[in-house]
Amino acid sequence: MATLIKSGTLITASDTFEADLLIEGEKISQIGINLKIPSDTHVIDASGKVIMPGGVDVHTHFALPMFNTISSDDHYTGHKAAAFGGTTTALDFISQDYDDILDCVKAWHQKAREKAAIDYGFHMNITKFSKKVASQIPLLRQEGINSVKVFTAYNDRLRLMDGEIFQVMRIAKENGMLVMVHAENGDVIELLIAEALSNGHTQPEWHALTRPADGAVESVNRVISLSRQTGAATYIVHMNTRGGVDHVRAAREEGLAVLGETCPQYLFFTIDNLRRQDGAKWICSPPMRSKSDNEGVWKALMDGTMQVFATDHCPFFYDGTTPIVYENEEIAIPGKELGKDDFTKIPNGLPAVGDRLLVLWSYGVNSGKITPNQFVALTSTNPAKIFGMYPQKGTLMPGSDADIAIWDPENELEYGVKYAHHRTDYNLFEGWKIKGTVEKVFLRGKMIVDGNQWFGEKGGGKFLHRKEITVL
Amino acid sequence: MATLIKSGTLITASDTFEADLLIEGEKISQIGINLKIPSDTHVIDASGKVIMPGGVDVHTHFALPMFNTISSDDHYTGHKAAAFGGTTTALDFISQDYDDILDCVKAWHQKAREKAAIDYGFHMNITKFSKKVASQIPLLRQEGINSVKVFTAYNDRLRLMDGEIFQVMRIAKENGMLVMVHAENGDVIELLIAEALSNGHTQPEWHALTRPADGAVESVNRVISLSRQTGAATYIVHMNTRGGVDHVRAAREEGLAVLGETCPQYLFFTIDNLRRQDGAKWICSPPMRSKSDNEGVWKALMDGTMQVFATDHCPFFYDGTTPIVYENEEIAIPGKELGKDDFTKIPNGLPAVGDRLLVLWSYGVNSGKITPNQFVALTSTNPAKIFGMYPQKGTLMPGSDADIAIWDPENELEYGVKYAHHRTDYNLFEGWKIKGTVEKVFLRGKMIVDGNQWFGEKGGGKFLHRKEITVL
Amino acid sequence: MATLIKSGTLITASDTFEADLLIEGEKISQIGINLKIPSDTHVIDASGKVIMPGGVDVHTHFALPMFNTISSDDHYTGHKAAAFGGTTTALDFISQDYDDILDCVKAWHQKAREKAAIDYGFHMNITKFSKKVASQIPLLRQEGINSVKVFTAYNDRLRLMDGEIFQVMRIAKENGMLVMVHAENGDVIELLIAEALSNGHTQPEWHALTRPADGAVESVNRVISLSRQTGAATYIVHMNTRGGVDHVRAAREEGLAVLGETCPQYLFFTIDNLRRQDGAKWICSPPMRSKSDNEGVWKALMDGTMQVFATDHCPFFYDGTTPIVYENEEIAIPGKELGKDDFTKIPNGLPAVGDRLLVLWSYGVNSGKITPNQFVALTSTNPAKIFGMYPQKGTLMPGSDADIAIWDPENELEYGVKYAHHRTDYNLFEGWKIKGTVEKVFLRGKMIVDGNQWFGEKGGGKFLHRKEITVL
Amino acid sequence: MATLIKSGTLITASDTFEADLLIEGEKISQIGINLKIPSDTHVIDASGKVIMPGGVDVHTHFALPMFNTISSDDHYTGHKAAAFGGTTTALDFISQDYDDILDCVKAWHQKAREKAAIDYGFHMNITKFSKKVASQIPLLRQEGINSVKVFTAYNDRLRLMDGEIFQVMRIAKENGMLVMVHAENGDVIELLIAEALSNGHTQPEWHALTRPADGAVESVNRVISLSRQTGAATYIVHMNTRGGVDHVRAAREEGLAVLGETCPQYLFFTIDNLRRQDGAKWICSPPMRSKSDNEGVWKALMDGTMQVFATDHCPFFYDGTTPIVYENEEIAIPGKELGKDDFTKIPNGLPAVGDRLLVLWSYGVNSGKITPNQFVALTSTNPAKIFGMYPQKGTLMPGSDADIAIWDPENELEYGVKYAHHRTDYNLFEGWKIKGTVEKVFLRGKMIVDGNQWFGEKGGGKFLHRKEITVL
Repeated sequence: MATLIKSGTLITASDTFEADLLIEGEKISQIGINLKIPSDTHVIDASGKVIMPGGVDVHTHFALPMFNTISSDDHYTGHKAAAFGGTTTALDFISQDYDDILDCVKAWHQKAREKAAIDYGFHMNITKFSKKVASQIPLLRQEGINSVKVFTAYNDRLRLMDGEIFQVMRIAKENGMLVMVHAENGDVIELLIAEALSNGHTQPEWHALTRPADGAVESVNRVISLSRQTGAATYIVHMNTRGGVDHVRAAREEGLAVLGETCPQYLFFTIDNLRRQDGAKWICSPPMRSKSDNEGVWKALMDGTMQVFATDHCPFFYDGTTPIVYENEEIAIPGKELGKDDFTKIPNGLPAVGDRLLVLWSYGVNSGKITPNQFVALTSTNPAKIFGMYPQKGTLMPGSDADIAIWDPENELEYGVKYAHHRTDYNLFEGWKIKGTVEKVFLRGKMIVDGNQWFGEKGGGKFLHRKEITVL
Repeated sequence: MATLIKSGTLITASDTFEADLLIEGEKISQIGINLKIPSDTHVIDASGKVIMPGGVDVHTHFALPMFNTISSDDHYTGHKAAAFGGTTTALDFISQDYDDILDCVKAWHQKAREKAAIDYGFHMNITKFSKKVASQIPLLRQEGINSVKVFTAYNDRLRLMDGEIFQVMRIAKENGMLVMVHAENGDVIELLIAEALSNGHTQPEWHALTRPADGAVESVNRVISLSRQTGAATYIVHMNTRGGVDHVRAAREEGLAVLGETCPQYLFFTIDNLRRQDGAKWICSPPMRSKSDNEGVWKALMDGTMQVFATDHCPFFYDGTTPIVYENEEIAIPGKELGKDDFTKIPNGLPAVGDRLLVLWSYGVNSGKITPNQFVALTSTNPAKIFGMYPQKGTLMPGSDADIAIWDPENELEYGVKYAHHRTDYNLFEGWKIKGTVEKVFLRGKMIVDGNQWFGEKGGGKFLHRKEITVL
Repeated sequence: MATLIKSGTLITASDTFEADLLIEGEKISQIGINLKIPSDTHVIDASGKVIMPGGVDVHTHFALPMFNTISSDDHYTGHKAAAFGGTTTALDFISQDYDDILDCVKAWHQKAREKAAIDYGFHMNITKFSKKVASQIPLLRQEGINSVKVFTAYNDRLRLMDGEIFQVMRIAKENGMLVMVHAENGDVIELLIAEALSNGHTQPEWHALTRPADGAVESVNRVISLSRQTGAATYIVHMNTRGGVDHVRAAREEGLAVLGETCPQYLFFTIDNLRRQDGAKWICSPPMRSKSDNEGVWKALMDGTMQVFATDHCPFFYDGTTPIVYENEEIAIPGKELGKDDFTKIPNGLPAVGDRLLVLWSYGVNSGKITPNQFVALTSTNPAKIFGMYPQKGTLMPGSDADIAIWDPENELEYGVKYAHHRTDYNLFEGWKIKGTVEKVFLRGKMIVDGNQWFGEKGGGKFLHRKEITVL
Repeated sequence: MATLIKSGTLITASDTFEADLLIEGEKISQIGINLKIPSDTHVIDASGKVIMPGGVDVHTHFALPMFNTISSDDHYTGHKAAAFGGTTTALDFISQDYDDILDCVKAWHQKAREKAAIDYGFHMNITKFSKKVASQIPLLRQEGINSVKVFTAYNDRLRLMDGEIFQVMRIAKENGMLVMVHAENGDVIELLIAEALSNGHTQPEWHALTRPADGAVESVNRVISLSRQTGAATYIVHMNTRGGVDHVRAAREEGLAVLGETCPQYLFFTIDNLRRQDGAKWICSPPMRSKSDNEGVWKALMDGTMQVFATDHCPFFYDGTTPIVYENEEIAIPGKELGKDDFTKIPNGLPAVGDRLLVLWSYGVNSGKITPNQFVALTSTNPAKIFGMYPQKGTLMPGSDADIAIWDPENELEYGVKYAHHRTDYNLFEGWKIKGTVEKVFLRGKMIVDGNQWFGEKGGGKFLHRKEITVL
């Protein structure tokens, strides 16, 4: 059976035009004017609607153990929330839990396979470097993994030293892989945290005060320097400082293979949010910064310095002692309350995978900051290209997977936890006005979301064996 | 009758994918996988071929009177040359020959209408400013003209003073029009020319020496300042200095509505070409600069600082005393020889409209400087959007005019005057290696070029009533 | 007879040290520790006092005819006010009132010679350019004039066109002369003024609104471009925009011979002052700008981008219909009231020559923005060097003219028109707190100021035959 | 007895003037025109000569143990060489050889006290950080030491981690001390060295290839970031990269308390020198870079981005197996030959303390790159002010120590090891043309050098108890 989406306005990274779109099997087969309707075709009238490729979120953390609890969305609930938000592909990060990184990959497959409800792939965290690890990184390519992630922060836990990052970058360069980097200055952070605690500073705002923007800016520059020396394609995750994006802009003007990503939370919130009574809700790393940083990041999103708008989705309950009803079951997972007396014990992370597209459309497109084409590029086409999923993912062209979101650009609502499908008890955008919502979502031709109905299924998502990266 | 272009690789400003493309009437009606072939359909096997939207050249001068002669391509021969080079839309500039600028428009229609072989439109030169002119500029919109051009050089001939440009910009801003600017410092040029001549410097290189890059850079900054003050969308034509594109880059980072264009000649040639015995061939304004400028302009093309790659096509014979055979007739038009004893008498301009796409593909795409998608954006989509012709022109989407070029990306040849169809006796790229050539060209569904055969016709081109400009 | 200034703290552009200073005749003859006191020596105990070289103000306008009146300080009253403010050398500008610029020089000598009370020199305004003028500019050197001034604004009155400035610069370059430039965009100003008046905007703030900062910034860049092309030493007068000083900073980093000057009014006041009921007091050109501009100019003063702190002293009465008593005589000179119904008729200019040093010391040195050594450099040493008066002027070294100011750095007072000695009825710094005042002033060894007593005399100032300019 | 230096041209950081200078006791007592000659005065006719304050070299290493040998100049021979080169003050670095840093200070006093022939002081290296060290750093102030040095390179040997440097900076900020930083990226260096050796690359050029400029640039930025966060006055030693000085320039424009130093070797030599057969002579750290870096550093010296021109004097014999005659004795000290088979064993360092002033005068002042006043500022006044020795040192003013060098600016010679007085067997400037040489040198009033005669003495130098640092 085929599906015909009729008379919608199709939006790609460069084009906007009215046409019909035909889905046959798992693929988009035709787009055209007044397409003939094959028999046995489900016809959807999309006049007045906007048709976009399903979103691609390359930065998520599902069921990630942290601080004696676990991020509250697993690959099923997280994928479902993503889908309701118009996203049909999500990549998350494999923890380096075993000596043999191929074992880590296996373990992550086990974690995801039976739960996945949208298509998915993995990045490999490299948090302990050794000769063995060095020799195994190239083997990831045949596992369909072309990206590794390193950290310049979290001393003695996740951090690699500069010399180790340098080595990872050289291996990546030789093997056509992308190096993703969490860039903060670990040393200064550890020091400030210890001092804050010893001075009795336990409130959430100290999370931000002990992770200074200056250190993030500095380490972005350091990482760029390593990228320049090794030639490795380098992708700085969750950028949130004006100085940092300025370094990326300069690096790109210099012609370096440096890419950047930001996330919804870094466009709108500041350290002031951490000072609220419920400030723990905004605890993630890197932390909320200043208005000036927000503006700098917006500009970088608008002018192409940032190529990707992802989420770093890693939700926790605000109050993990009080159950919520999720899919008809009561559930409570320990969350932010763990750190009510010590900001260092507040799990780091927040819900976003389902909010991403709606918020950016309302506050980026509707406000005129970015065009609808840029919206598609930032949220779908660019990440698909960079991470080696294009043209299977990321566009509406014939031959591509029929991952499609039909939007009603005129629909208005008040957003919040009730609307989002994250498995958690709060939403950062609670009460925000939204104009433009997702009506129907297709995953490889199958309609998995229709209004507030869910037709997706556990295990319905496929692992993406990713190919060549592209440096945009 | 329909036409089906089968199994080609379609390239748009953001996408690359293999599909069939169906033309019905003047429009693209469908793109898809294994499209069914309607009866009475002409099927073209495009496997291994590249399908792109027809080129849009927004900077041409056909039959432009200059220095007691006239540019040697008229709207017919120029359009034909453009078509053979894959271009299906060309805009040229109306001279302000009459007090009433609407009379100027009429005159230009008369000049073009019966000759046009591809679709075309006009910009209006404002070279004499008055209250009347000020009041008439807004009327151009209903004439389908949304762009005016001003000059900061050519004192007492084409130049408007800063205060006049300021006024033109305000009118343009109020009326949604684009201000195109030729930016050089007229004052210093006039002075240096007078001195050069009085010192007996008559050779072509003095054309460049009397039009210093510094003055071009300065006036780009001046124009940007006027744009900042008035808010007018401003488009700097034929940029060719490193300093100039740096100013545009900075203006864009500042968020100003400033756009830039460059042309083939400014990527490859320098003042050294003017020092050749046949240096007059390279005489145009602004003049050839330095290697460093070429590199700066390439970079600006690569990083998006320049949005448009046009030509400033304005050919003259190198030796207008010796006829050539063009369309089976002998013809000679006075040309560069007019200035053999005085560089100021050499007609300013050179052939390029037919070379533009082939040269950029071979030296930009094949060399890896730009992607095929950027190629389409720079040569077709961006100019169509900026100048208000999109989505009728500039893309391959269903509903758009079926202006299509089928390329053979593997075909190699030695380029030159024999291959190009310009009505002149020389070509700047004589003997250059080209890989990637135009095989077939469609104008609104009609095949006008097939290999070296011409099926276009005088009067077959339609005037484009252009709509809203877009500031990319 | 000699004078010994004992135990003061001497300050030069680089040194601060406690020593005695001996004046013999017109010169400083010795500085040392415990200098022996020759017989017949006037000994001044300067312990706790600061000894600096007399100020050099290179930008003044005495008895300048404007708008049917004349600036209210002539070479006598202006020099006297300067002296009370610690300044012992003043340069002003010769108007180009005659065809023969040497006649202009003569006329200016007549104007100044019998009035001068401190040492003085002239710059030559070039406001009408011709071959004859071109041939005469080099002759100024033997007149002791090594600096000319041109304007990019005041169309049809003072402005030279870019090509003329280019020629002046080449002549200056060849003859070791400095080109001073008043940089605003004349064209846009004329236009905006005409529009403002025709719209009935007559209030003082329109003086600023019709002279936009953007035009000043642009023309600074234009002038720098001409300087780059000609190699001429170029000195931008009365800089007051953040963008303008940024251009100068960049030019200097590029290694160009570009220098910059600012004045007290541009550090403290903004367009808001023009909006006061007595806004006309702040009318001068260029006009007051914004807080951001003030800060940019302060920074440029602190970091050396500006080498000179002068005044553009050109006072008028605020109410020229009401006499004041000056030197025991009643006097009233038509002033700001001329433009009470039309901002374009308000004489442009304000009193500053006597305020300059006190204000900069209190608000620059005392606030820690600049060091005392920078103070001396900016107000005395640098201008003396740049304009070819060093080491005769601008320092405290043996052999230099004994032009000396003894300051009491601890003395505090409330400043204003009563304290300043300008021949006008208002002061911009009325009521400001001042700490650090001038106690005694010596001109070539003669004490001309002692507290509030005046010992200077009309005709006591000598014309300075200036020598080689220096590009700092 | 007094000394009168008659009729010389005195040069300070801002002034140039002809005068007599009188020395009484250890101090300059007077400068003046035609000073009267006290009886019992030694009169030196200095007409045609240039009189400058004795040089201040704040970066030297005397008798520094390294790689099983020791730098070949001790506090006596090094001081003597310095004096012959016009330098009368030298600071060197205390190694942190003992747990108690006050013990380290004591040890260094013992090393220097009986040898010192010019005035001297110490910086304290902090190469092992602990709570105890943290608590002792402030105690250095009462020892007359207001500067500490840290390293971002030499892992496991000299390097402090970022968090430790951050702490040192905070202590320094609180105690008015200066933090000197050797900025390279230690991690990458260690890695590259290990790889080079394992690949059999043992030649001197690998010293440069394993210490990439990029790492130096990056770590300068990192250090600036730490300085911004802590507010500590920060002084980057021996800067030699274009990118590094650009970072310092930007930091200073931002208003940060960042200072920079460069040394003679970094203005003239490149990695090509290391490729010579005797390349080991140029081995020091950081290594020789590129022509472009040299030019960038020159520019930074000229425009004030670098405030200090020092040496990093740390000489070794080129052939420590062949004795030279020094002060009538044969001596050989193991040197560069130690690393003839392994570049990592070549002692790092080179002779320069005696060359510094002559080379900069000939190639900086005579070439017009810097003025004589800048020369004095860079080599004497600025370092004296920054390191808290001014006005005792660094100027020619009455009351200052009579540390004076009389130069013959016209004397020309071919420079080299024979002329310099370093205790080593080679000179980097062997055979260079020098114009302008040191004739006589006074240390606190005593003539210690007269032509090629030495009147200085072991133990004649005094320890300088340094006071407040100044951030220029």
